[in-house]
This record gives sequence, C-alpha cells and structure tokens, in this order.
Amino acid sequence: MSEAGAPVDFYFEFSSPYGYIASQLADDFEKRIGRPLRWRPTLLGPVFKITGQAPLIEVPMKGPYSRMDFERTARLHKVAYRHPGKFPIGTVAALRAFYWVSERDPAKARPLAKAVYRSYFVDGEDISAPAAVIAAARGVGIDAAALAAALEDPAIKERAKKEVEAAIAAGVFGSPFFVVDGEPFWGTDRMPMVEEWVRRGGW
Amino acid sequence: MSEAGAPVDFYFEFSSPYGYIASQLADDFEKRIGRPLRWRPTLLGPVFKITGQAPLIEVPMKGPYSRMDFERTARLHKVAYRHPGKFPIGTVAALRAFYWVSERDPAKARPLAKAVYRSYFVDGEDISAPAAVIAAARGVGIDAAALAAALEDPAIKERAKKEVEAAIAAGVFGSPFFVVDGEPFWGTDRMPMVEEWVRRGGW
Repeated sequence: MSEAGAPVDFYFEFSSPYGYIASQLADDFEKRIGRPLRWRPTLLGPVFKITGQAPLIEVPMKGPYSRMDFERTARLHKVAYRHPGKFPIGTVAALRAFYWVSERDPAKARPLAKAVYRSYFVDGEDISAPAAVIAAARGVGIDAAALAAALEDPAIKERAKKEVEAAIAAGVFGSPFFVVDGEPFWGTDRMPMVEEWVRRGGW
Repeated sequence: MSEAGAPVDFYFEFSSPYGYIASQLADDFEKRIGRPLRWRPTLLGPVFKITGQAPLIEVPMKGPYSRMDFERTARLHKVAYRHPGKFPIGTVAALRAFYWVSERDPAKARPLAKAVYRSYFVDGEDISAPAAVIAAARGVGIDAAALAAALEDPAIKERAKKEVEAAIAAGVFGSPFFVVDGEPFWGTDRMPMVEEWVRRGGW
C-alpha cells in the first residue's frame, strides 16, 4: 500500500478555519511523516451543492460549537486566530492565484497560501476580494500586476476549475482533507492518524 | 474552571458506530482522566430535525467515507466491529432500558450499554426491536420480564424523553459527545483533547 516518498495530498479551502490551522501545522507534519505534502487548495461551495449540506457555521447546534472550537483548536496548537468578521467567504481569487503561482514559480506557492490565510484569519482582510489576494501575494514577492492579469486569464480559471473537479473526484468533502496512497482522512484532528498510517503503512 | 472529581458527561447514541467505539475505550479513558464518566445515552433523530441534517451514512461523499472510516477507526483501536446490515436504526428501546436499569440497579447500566452495543455492532442483532434489547439485558443478569414491562411504562418513557431533551439543551448534536465542566467536545477523535483539557484545566 505505502509508496515511500510519494506525495501526500493536502486539500484545503481558504475560507476554512481548520484548513488554516492545518496549514500552520503542515511544515512540521511534513517533516514527521517524511513524505512531501502536496498543497491543493479547493472550494467547498460545489461540494455543499453535492452533499446538500451548509457551511458548518450555519448549521443549528453545530454552528455555535464550531465557532467556539475554531478558537479552542487554534489555542491548543498555539496558532494565531481572529475569527473574521465576514465568514465564510468565496475564495476563487485565492484559488486561482495559488495555481497560477504554482505553475509560474512553485517555490512561492506555499508562502502565498500562508500569506493569504494569515491575511484572512489574523489580519481580518476580506480575501474574497482579488485586491486582498494581490496584496498578500505582493508581500511574498509575487509580481502584483502579473497576478492581477492572471486572475482574469481563462487558462488560469480553467486550471482552478479542474483542480476543484479533481478534488471532488478524489472524494474531498471537507477541509483539511488528506489523501495518502488513495486513503482519505478528513479533519485537523485526523493528522495524528495520517501520521500513524504513513508510519505503519496502513492497518 | 476545572472541578476536580466532578463527573464528565459521555453522551452517545446506540446506533452510532463512533459512540460504540468510544464506549469500548471509555473505561481506560475514565482511568486516565481520573474523573468519573457519566454515561448518558441519547437519540440523534430529534437532533437531525433541529439541524436539518441527515445520518452521516446518507450524505453524499461523506457517507462512503464514513462507512470506511467506522471500520478503520475500530481497527486502529482494536475494537471488534461488523457493520450492521440494518443501519442506522431507532434506539428508543435501548435508551429506555438503560435509564430504567440506571434507576433500579445502577451498577448494571454500563454492562447493559456494552451488551446492547455488542449485540448490534458485533453480533448484528437488530436492537431496534425490544426483544433484542431484552436478550442483551438478560445476558448481563437483568430481569427480562421486569424490563419488558418497564419498556412500556409511561414513567420510563418520560424519563428517556427528558434525557434526550437535556442532551439537546446541553448542545449535544453528535455521538460520542463529552461535556467537561460545561465544555463540549464532539467525536471519538477528540478524546485525547478531552484528556488534555482535564489535565490542564482548559487552555
């Protein structure tokens, strides 16, 4: 089952608090599992259409619990967290920016993802606006004008769309979501289980 | 925040695989946290009416994942598990039996819960039928005739109803669900977090 060295897919949605927390833990996690993590942002909106579910925060009973648990989980992991005033939001601009950068300058893709997440979950910027994504990108040395143009490029829009379709085809219905050699794991609190799965080669 | 020695509430639904797995881990867990665990079975049907959600197994994408994850999680914890042919089921008979026994002979309440769970998740018995609950109860030395009568007793029905209402009032929307000094935790995979919460008195 286990393919030593093969990447472990790390799916996340830029509007997801648990995805953000996982992104903050991801580098250490990657070292511990000893396999490269492939960061693959996606969108949950199209998933909710398939599953008939609503964003967590809007579900009676689960909503208030989740709202509290975002901050509790962040505190546990010593991750800075300020619940955004506008939440959840559409994150297609961030998604397109990520995949454009990952084609053009792959080494900047993770720094961009982290900067976008920080902008939303620490600084409270509304990253549904392309301008906020571009500002975050500029902060990590990405050409702002080129990115602004790329966000309107049909080829980039198509690439982002295909990534969301691929995530859905892989069964990704939440954020974060990990896939190890075809084995799916949903949730920040499953990261220890992913680690054990990699170590033991499954069970 | 932490009230040393005060019980930790352990809510579960008899039709819930994760509740069953938690019940198998509960005795060791109780020793580790050093506080008594108060077993409080409840029903999730009334919760789904409030949240507008469906049983996990019926949700597109999440359903197949969960079906796989029940067995994977059981294997991880070395808990015997055979996915029941009829699933999910109504568990009001098991609920009433539990609360009747907990009034009449509290020491037998946990053994009853474990026997009912084993009957469903290991032996494949349909515990929605009172006869299956009574058979499980007989196996742990409970008076079968008295229990059969109790299942039709309006006072026991009322007690069970009140327990479900109390669980909902406490915010219980899933199984297993733990409440420590008012702090809620949802899911088997949060048991390590509960442990840490108790140890540190929160964070």
